[in-house]
Amino acid sequence: MRLHTAPDHGIVGAVATAISAAGGVVTAIDVVDSTRDRLVLDVTCSASDAEHSKRLEQAVDAIDGVEVYKVSDRTFLLHIGGKIEVTSKVPLRNRDDLSMAYTPGVGRVSMALAENPDDVSRLTIKGNSVAVVTDGSAVLGLGNIGPGAALPVMEGKAALFKRFAGIDAWPICLASQDTDEIVRAVEMIAPGFGGINLEDIAAPRCFEIEQRLRESLDIPVFHDDQHGTAIVVLAALTNALRVVGKKLTDSRVVVSGAGAAGTAIVTLLIAAGVSDVVVVDKEGAICSGDGSLSPAHTELAEVTNPRHVQGSLQECLVDADVFIGVSAPGILQPEWIGTMAEKPVVFALANPDPEVDPAEAEKYAAVVASGRSDYPNQINNVLAFPGVFRGLLDARARDITIDMLLRAADAIAHVVRDEELNPNFIIPTVFNTQVPKAVAAAIRGAGTGDA
Amino acid sequence: MRLHTAPDHGIVGAVATAISAAGGVVTAIDVVDSTRDRLVLDVTCSASDAEHSKRLEQAVDAIDGVEVYKVSDRTFLLHIGGKIEVTSKVPLRNRDDLSMAYTPGVGRVSMALAENPDDVSRLTIKGNSVAVVTDGSAVLGLGNIGPGAALPVMEGKAALFKRFAGIDAWPICLASQDTDEIVRAVEMIAPGFGGINLEDIAAPRCFEIEQRLRESLDIPVFHDDQHGTAIVVLAALTNALRVVGKKLTDSRVVVSGAGAAGTAIVTLLIAAGVSDVVVVDKEGAICSGDGSLSPAHTELAEVTNPRHVQGSLQECLVDADVFIGVSAPGILQPEWIGTMAEKPVVFALANPDPEVDPAEAEKYAAVVASGRSDYPNQINNVLAFPGVFRGLLDARARDITIDMLLRAADAIAHVVRDEELNPNFIIPTVFNTQVPKAVAAAIRGAGTGDA
Repeated sequence: MRLHTAPDHGIVGAVATAISAAGGVVTAIDVVDSTRDRLVLDVTCSASDAEHSKRLEQAVDAIDGVEVYKVSDRTFLLHIGGKIEVTSKVPLRNRDDLSMAYTPGVGRVSMALAENPDDVSRLTIKGNSVAVVTDGSAVLGLGNIGPGAALPVMEGKAALFKRFAGIDAWPICLASQDTDEIVRAVEMIAPGFGGINLEDIAAPRCFEIEQRLRESLDIPVFHDDQHGTAIVVLAALTNALRVVGKKLTDSRVVVSGAGAAGTAIVTLLIAAGVSDVVVVDKEGAICSGDGSLSPAHTELAEVTNPRHVQGSLQECLVDADVFIGVSAPGILQPEWIGTMAEKPVVFALANPDPEVDPAEAEKYAAVVASGRSDYPNQINNVLAFPGVFRGLLDARARDITIDMLLRAADAIAHVVRDEELNPNFIIPTVFNTQVPKAVAAAIRGAGTGDA
Repeated sequence: MRLHTAPDHGIVGAVATAISAAGGVVTAIDVVDSTRDRLVLDVTCSASDAEHSKRLEQAVDAIDGVEVYKVSDRTFLLHIGGKIEVTSKVPLRNRDDLSMAYTPGVGRVSMALAENPDDVSRLTIKGNSVAVVTDGSAVLGLGNIGPGAALPVMEGKAALFKRFAGIDAWPICLASQDTDEIVRAVEMIAPGFGGINLEDIAAPRCFEIEQRLRESLDIPVFHDDQHGTAIVVLAALTNALRVVGKKLTDSRVVVSGAGAAGTAIVTLLIAAGVSDVVVVDKEGAICSGDGSLSPAHTELAEVTNPRHVQGSLQECLVDADVFIGVSAPGILQPEWIGTMAEKPVVFALANPDPEVDPAEAEKYAAVVASGRSDYPNQINNVLAFPGVFRGLLDARARDITIDMLLRAADAIAHVVRDEELNPNFIIPTVFNTQVPKAVAAAIRGAGTGDA
């Protein structure tokens, strides 16, 4: 915050006091310029969110003799100019360098690749590059904000790919939300990439896009919102059940939300051996025989809800062992957890606001996880996607298989050792360097077969 | 070259002698392993091309007691794993970093961009990024080798963008050579880029693709094979005419080749004030009134050849001041240059083998330029495209205008000072750091209007 103030005695102290009183934490106050009739101050302070920042600004502006000239937000400052860059791995100092990296030397490499297309992965970036593709239709919890506004998220994802797995990822933000156009555009750009990470594409369009691309492309296609989430949920659930001493195969699971994440979670849980899953959406439990279901939900109904449970979320939760929410904020009343089976497990993963306040849920549940970093047990896709693609690229895999997803989940779960495991630590932190390595090894070691 | 040899006295000297005798230059011979009955030698030497390298290998293999185990080519070694990478510009050390670069902090940036789309260029990579787009249909002099084999060239181009203008360029190699599909794919990926560099797309498809993209996109679209070449040719011609004391407006110019480069060169020369240009292709001079011409050539005929010259290249060259070849190797007999006007200027730009051997052309011409780096006056697009895009991105230009191209050419020409100018130095070297700066400044200072 840059302030113009009168040069009065005590004015700096008044600013500090005002910020503290409004709940802000002052890091530094620098006098940038001082004249007889004016001080220019740069105040660096922490706020809890954008709204709080606004309140701090108002508190300072209200001081007599102080004018807020400009407020900078370090998050915005960080994003100026973008968060990733393209750098050359080869020297370009002189003619000799240039003639190898570009013409005429590069011509020999291109001719060799024209003759042996299999070498493209070895002699180009294709072997280590991933396209992070979105249409901007379901970005984080923000909804359909379009491709341009989605770009900061895709850049962040690309930065994480490099940070956690050494992968060169580039954002591809598409100016269309038409399924056919998206499929064709991704097919067209595929020659330059070793893998496709679909990101923040709305359901049910994302299912068809992924399915069609998997059929047409010879590189792996992974919709992170589906499979990345499913892997981390299964990993966390594996460990939560280790904590409460239950078996996955015997557990009754209720999943709230039948979108991209919910569907993928259910598919992976069933593949892992869970036999009793009930999916609940806004209308209540999804149950086979219901003619009003969409095609996607009809498919889901066929493989879930073997006891033909009907009714609301509250009704479905009675005697359930596990609740997994990937739906909407606040839809789970904490007391309902009390009606679940003994030692219930609650994963409230809606972002940024979970289905139930984790602190409230803890009063009833044996293990609680959420998507939030300010509570224990954060379910974070960063645990999965870097290692998944590292493994896929290392193995030059053409497809992603359900066996790979299961092994990846198992690898993440077992990074937490038995003696570390407890209700507040069922999942490793994202900075644990063992995680991407273990996931990549699991992917490389997996068999084939459709996911 | 790794050799297995007998441990005989004199064997290392024999290897060195054999390579020298075959015209190779030995940089180093390292003994990697030595046992009683075998030496392993690594020989580093320079060859003039791949064929020469093969001859050196055979010369060494022919020595008694020497076996060539493996030959590595440093150009291929350089390309392993690709030549560019994506790196994060922001720190990702801890939770706090992660929460600003990715969720939840990035959500605020995305929301701000959804509200103010104009800020996308400022707060994302869009403001500094260029897509290098090809369909692999006309790669260097190699022809239609496809998108995968084109990738090393596009990576090289991206590396040059960073090296010479600090631009983040990413290769987009398209798996289709259909005009409609290419146009749509580029439109779809455009939201993430600040400019489109079309590269190595065959004529006449490239004209329509560029034209349609310029109409539909709000970011500049530049086909380097056309306009990059035209800028550098005009710059070189400006200085060549300074050397021979002729005026551009009074000169008779013959252009051999009516493809992408030839067409763009002609258009720019006319805009620069040249009134007498004759374009010659395989069939001879292109002349209006010829019903057999393609639509593109009919357009070209309408604006060129005011004297209605007909006949072969040899016939057209009589009394011409300037020959510009962007066509095929060896089509210009050196003696024909003797029939041109006084102090003729010859640009033989076909790659990798020019229309006439520059050394032969020098016997007749006052100034000779080529695309080759082993003769003076190399016409190299690297002089233009980095500065052009730097200027376009800096100015947040939506379009590229003919005025920009003219100014860019003028800027390159005038980096060579009067006192430096001579027949062997009409164009600055690619490592002259003034060039991209001067070009960028010229582009930023240019007016608007269609190119």
